[in-house]
Amino acid sequence: MRLLLFNPNTAAALTQRLVASASRVLPADVDLVPVTAGTGFPYISSRAEAQIAGAGVLDGLAERAGTFDAAVIAAFGDPGLHAARELFDLPVTGLSEAAMIMSLSLGERFAFVTFARRMRPWYDEQVARAGLAARFAGTFAPEEGFGSISSVAEEMREPLLRTCLRAAEAADVLVLAGAPIAGLANDIADDVPAILVDPMQAAVVHAVALHRLRPQGADRGSYARPPGKPATGLPAAIAARLAR
Amino acid sequence: MRLLLFNPNTAAALTQRLVASASRVLPADVDLVPVTAGTGFPYISSRAEAQIAGAGVLDGLAERAGTFDAAVIAAFGDPGLHAARELFDLPVTGLSEAAMIMSLSLGERFAFVTFARRMRPWYDEQVARAGLAARFAGTFAPEEGFGSISSVAEEMREPLLRTCLRAAEAADVLVLAGAPIAGLANDIADDVPAILVDPMQAAVVHAVALHRLRPQGADRGSYARPPGKPATGLPAAIAARLAR
Amino acid sequence: MRLLLFNPNTAAALTQRLVASASRVLPADVDLVPVTAGTGFPYISSRAEAQIAGAGVLDGLAERAGTFDAAVIAAFGDPGLHAARELFDLPVTGLSEAAMIMSLSLGERFAFVTFARRMRPWYDEQVARAGLAARFAGTFAPEEGFGSISSVAEEMREPLLRTCLRAAEAADVLVLAGAPIAGLANDIADDVPAILVDPMQAAVVHAVALHRLRPQGADRGSYARPPGKPATGLPAAIAARLAR
Amino acid sequence: MRLLLFNPNTAAALTQRLVASASRVLPADVDLVPVTAGTGFPYISSRAEAQIAGAGVLDGLAERAGTFDAAVIAAFGDPGLHAARELFDLPVTGLSEAAMIMSLSLGERFAFVTFARRMRPWYDEQVARAGLAARFAGTFAPEEGFGSISSVAEEMREPLLRTCLRAAEAADVLVLAGAPIAGLANDIADDVPAILVDPMQAAVVHAVALHRLRPQGADRGSYARPPGKPATGLPAAIAARLAR
Amino acid sequence: MRLLLFNPNTAAALTQRLVASASRVLPADVDLVPVTAGTGFPYISSRAEAQIAGAGVLDGLAERAGTFDAAVIAAFGDPGLHAARELFDLPVTGLSEAAMIMSLSLGERFAFVTFARRMRPWYDEQVARAGLAARFAGTFAPEEGFGSISSVAEEMREPLLRTCLRAAEAADVLVLAGAPIAGLANDIADDVPAILVDPMQAAVVHAVALHRLRPQGADRGSYARPPGKPATGLPAAIAARLAR
Amino acid sequence: MRLLLFNPNTAAALTQRLVASASRVLPADVDLVPVTAGTGFPYISSRAEAQIAGAGVLDGLAERAGTFDAAVIAAFGDPGLHAARELFDLPVTGLSEAAMIMSLSLGERFAFVTFARRMRPWYDEQVARAGLAARFAGTFAPEEGFGSISSVAEEMREPLLRTCLRAAEAADVLVLAGAPIAGLANDIADDVPAILVDPMQAAVVHAVALHRLRPQGADRGSYARPPGKPATGLPAAIAARLAR
Repeated sequence: MRLLLFNPNTAAALTQRLVASASRVLPADVDLVPVTAGTGFPYISSRAEAQIAGAGVLDGLAERAGTFDAAVIAAFGDPGLHAARELFDLPVTGLSEAAMIMSLSLGERFAFVTFARRMRPWYDEQVARAGLAARFAGTFAPEEGFGSISSVAEEMREPLLRTCLRAAEAADVLVLAGAPIAGLANDIADDVPAILVDPMQAAVVHAVALHRLRPQGADRGSYARPPGKPATGLPAAIAARLAR
Repeated sequence: MRLLLFNPNTAAALTQRLVASASRVLPADVDLVPVTAGTGFPYISSRAEAQIAGAGVLDGLAERAGTFDAAVIAAFGDPGLHAARELFDLPVTGLSEAAMIMSLSLGERFAFVTFARRMRPWYDEQVARAGLAARFAGTFAPEEGFGSISSVAEEMREPLLRTCLRAAEAADVLVLAGAPIAGLANDIADDVPAILVDPMQAAVVHAVALHRLRPQGADRGSYARPPGKPATGLPAAIAARLAR
Repeated sequence: MRLLLFNPNTAAALTQRLVASASRVLPADVDLVPVTAGTGFPYISSRAEAQIAGAGVLDGLAERAGTFDAAVIAAFGDPGLHAARELFDLPVTGLSEAAMIMSLSLGERFAFVTFARRMRPWYDEQVARAGLAARFAGTFAPEEGFGSISSVAEEMREPLLRTCLRAAEAADVLVLAGAPIAGLANDIADDVPAILVDPMQAAVVHAVALHRLRPQGADRGSYARPPGKPATGLPAAIAARLAR
Repeated sequence: MRLLLFNPNTAAALTQRLVASASRVLPADVDLVPVTAGTGFPYISSRAEAQIAGAGVLDGLAERAGTFDAAVIAAFGDPGLHAARELFDLPVTGLSEAAMIMSLSLGERFAFVTFARRMRPWYDEQVARAGLAARFAGTFAPEEGFGSISSVAEEMREPLLRTCLRAAEAADVLVLAGAPIAGLANDIADDVPAILVDPMQAAVVHAVALHRLRPQGADRGSYARPPGKPATGLPAAIAARLAR
Repeated sequence: MRLLLFNPNTAAALTQRLVASASRVLPADVDLVPVTAGTGFPYISSRAEAQIAGAGVLDGLAERAGTFDAAVIAAFGDPGLHAARELFDLPVTGLSEAAMIMSLSLGERFAFVTFARRMRPWYDEQVARAGLAARFAGTFAPEEGFGSISSVAEEMREPLLRTCLRAAEAADVLVLAGAPIAGLANDIADDVPAILVDPMQAAVVHAVALHRLRPQGADRGSYARPPGKPATGLPAAIAARLAR
Repeated sequence: MRLLLFNPNTAAALTQRLVASASRVLPADVDLVPVTAGTGFPYISSRAEAQIAGAGVLDGLAERAGTFDAAVIAAFGDPGLHAARELFDLPVTGLSEAAMIMSLSLGERFAFVTFARRMRPWYDEQVARAGLAARFAGTFAPEEGFGSISSVAEEMREPLLRTCLRAAEAADVLVLAGAPIAGLANDIADDVPAILVDPMQAAVVHAVALHRLRPQGADRGSYARPPGKPATGLPAAIAARLAR
């Protein structure tokens, strides 16, 4: 199967980091197809950016329709996930969703650990949106600010490790949230008395599982394709998909 | 004060219907500024359309920044609401949010009544997203399909009335959901033993209240303006707003 | 419109403080009619006192029926609110309800900040009663005790400010709860990185909005007027209202 | 022990019915002390009446303080329960609370069955107030109206039986709610494939259990006696109790 | 009545401790029949041990069927409770359930206090299983580890007292959870500004109340006896009970 | 990898049915190792049977430890799942858990459809236990009773199809619950306008995903192996595992 890794951020370095993480759990018979968004933001970190990037995700997927069997929206916060599920008849998941879902079988409570305090409310909202608050222990972040988004995984290693130790008091499973720290879970796993989940890896194995269970994805029920509709002012690919 | 009524649908006839409804409760000292979206869909009726239209709302508001004191996103489902709250330092609300909020003081339980069954799950999600499920009795819709979106309020009057009677068994307050039936609440109020709320009217009075209480809106906390960020491929107005 | 501000506490000084706060957001076309309860307690601070004062509210409103268009029960905890909603066919709200409701459009999570730790469980109950726990971050109060209820806003200014800073870690919006600290929100707003809501001001703008949306209030559904019933041993005004 | 059965309704016939029901489960070493409220309403059936009657309960208990070891507030809806728990250092429970609590050990889900549809929202609120909604299947009532409150148990026997059969589809335990139908649970038990709970009986056994476990009741924590406070215009007994 | 106290732990010393605690609240007309499990673990402290011990409880009760009128499963975590409720037509409760239930009438929020941190998630699950999370403030335990399970109540007295003081900040009622600390609640009650509940005592009074209310227990609804079924490899008593 | 399919029922015909269903989604590099329980019940259909069978699962897995890389507990209701997660350092899931989890990515709401009404409350409890009630639309079953458990999938095909059509009104995803109807989802998929999930298939793909993500399973946090403990009267394999 061909698994599209669509990075809604425009920073190609993030895509590389995500691919490196994904490759650790990629089955031999899965071709990973990484794509970096052509429009949007270097790194999505607010609801406003996610609203816009989510529209871009739909266009990006529409452009490539037919070239992949399942898709991962590779940003925490899953911009455009539920919309994409309506428009494409194949499995689609996102880093937040997949990380939460895999956590459910690895512990009783999961927490998010991320590198910037200001993302906490937005990340908390992912859990409420998914109806999983009963299993959630909160989003934890270091007190410290960070310098550069491109090196945050290295720069913040120690503060994030300390944050993990704190979060491990409240949760069995810690999701290391945010594309810029993809791969960090493996690096610090031995130093934390909790299970660390890398969202990119969770998304790969979950997307493969979904593809095996139901290649056509969420094609019925409330996520079934909406009736065709004309659109004004949209990019061609997404307009065409919506019109049919 | 100048109150922007931003209709994220591209159908100007809907804007007229919304303005007619709003005018019934508009205070004398409020100027209503109606705008119809220039891009998007004649009528938003799916999560995918809301994802795209929500991005358009941000651009539409950015283009007009400085010309209004508060804004209503005039589509049920509130596309772009939380994103807009981050980007603009003035009160912003939406038809769903305002209708739910006003309902809380008019009864113990509220329900949505709408004209198409397929919108029920998406409308239910608005309530879950707002954390108000404990006060919600569900979304009710007629069994019958409808012909034309532009005349649905007239065409479906009887089925909607019957649906209201059914919903009144479960809720004190019924929100007549969906821009195409704006104004219907007033027409059938005498025939239903429950309180009918017109979302457009709820949004007007709530936006005015928010403006009076806090003209600068949600300018602190997790909805405070995110740090400026460069963007690629976005319309000029929204790109400029995000960059600062 | 004439807006009744019914203070269920017997301390006239509290009424003055509430009126001063209300006047900051009062529309020009609204006449505020302040009334101080003639029976009850100087300051309600327990469930038992609220039970009794709530009955007094009903009598107080019944005595004045016909002289106002909407009413605010001006004590946190909203004594008698739901009962009043049954008996009077006009909008009625309370400080807790209105503050919570306005907070919903100003942030994702709200918290209460008050001056006495022992009121925390009772204030928490207001949120559970309203079904809004999913949006609530808790009631925060200083460790310190206070001297006099009449000067608590001044005396506890610094401890309350520190408490706000602590609460701002958990919530976007802080409701400064309790009539004795009405007006404090405006005084300390510049020193707190969160949105401060004054419940009296929230109640004024919300009551005005309700009046504009539905002058007859919650006159249908489960808050509709109960059938007339004879009563024994009640004050004349409320007995007469219940009897019809 | 002396167990006060305080009927907040003024109808003595209801007290007799309640005593008859209570006597079926009364331990030999418990003296039941029935009291009928001197002020209030023949039969409480709205939030407004409960607000007023609840204040009367406090006065009634204060008048008799020292003459009983535990108290049952013998009306569904438990008027004044939480307030009484603050003021008296002995166990207090109510028909709703006790019936819900005993139901928790008799099945997974409980329902209320009552004789009048208009009481459903208010009865539902008891469950939300108690935080027990996860175990609740709703309030069921006959479609039919009833004639006289004094003979409703006899008059509505068949409709109530049919309602029980319907409720038994959704719940393991049915609480026959409302003092006017006290005792009916025993009469129709053989005809319903669910467990029927009589709230008066539940309250007797639960009050006795509380007395044995903790004779001083909820005398600590947030239900501890509030500090003494002067009151204006209250009956002497309750004023005295509040003042100390 | 004969009340079976079935200790699912195999340590007879625990049974003695439980009996001593129970005797403080045992009515004169109740015969307590203590039994120590013959198979299983000295002290159950994990989900795995509870799964196995719960099966042992069913066998133990089946062996003694006919010799008791009600049963208490005397281990926190209530191993086998819901299963036992299906198989025996008499009241059955457990230490966790009864402690939670009695707490509901003694305060607004309850907490668990126990002696070992590793039991916290499992104890938290009891509350979620019971649907009582809205009334729960969490499980509190000392930082310190303990030496011997047989003397933990004495050895950990001071750390547990400190833990109670901490928990009293969050809850009205503290349940001293775990059979090895049965009786401790009485010893330290004077030193804690909250209500302390001993689960064994709560279970005695609640089981007696259930017996008086409904001697046949949960014999209808979803806990009614399942249809008879053959079994392979089970002890004789439980196999016989299941077969009929 | 070797995937243990442990059928906690003693009916070998059920194992065959489960294997047939599993084989439809089994990756080429996974060896399925089916095992039928040697003790217990032909078909588990009550909480009591699940309590006992769950203990048997632990023994069955302990006997085979070292011969498999991941395990599926192949009965709806997941007997022994959380206990097994403590004792074995490899991924373990169950039919209920896996079906719920996969459903989360295929729709907004899922429902259970099963063949016997009496299992509804027990199946509902699985959802509450998992904290997923916000995404659940209930358990649906035909009105009709069935004849033989071994042919229920064929015998009840029409009633189950009608039940699916009814459930599709409330949910996007329908889980066909119960080992005796394994495989039915594929047979009737074309006739139902919702997504049908076969729990056995969901469990296979989810177990494989868990194994790829974390071969050591839930070996940290609250599901980490409990300290070794002596046991009395247990089968040798499980006693040995618990002792170490």
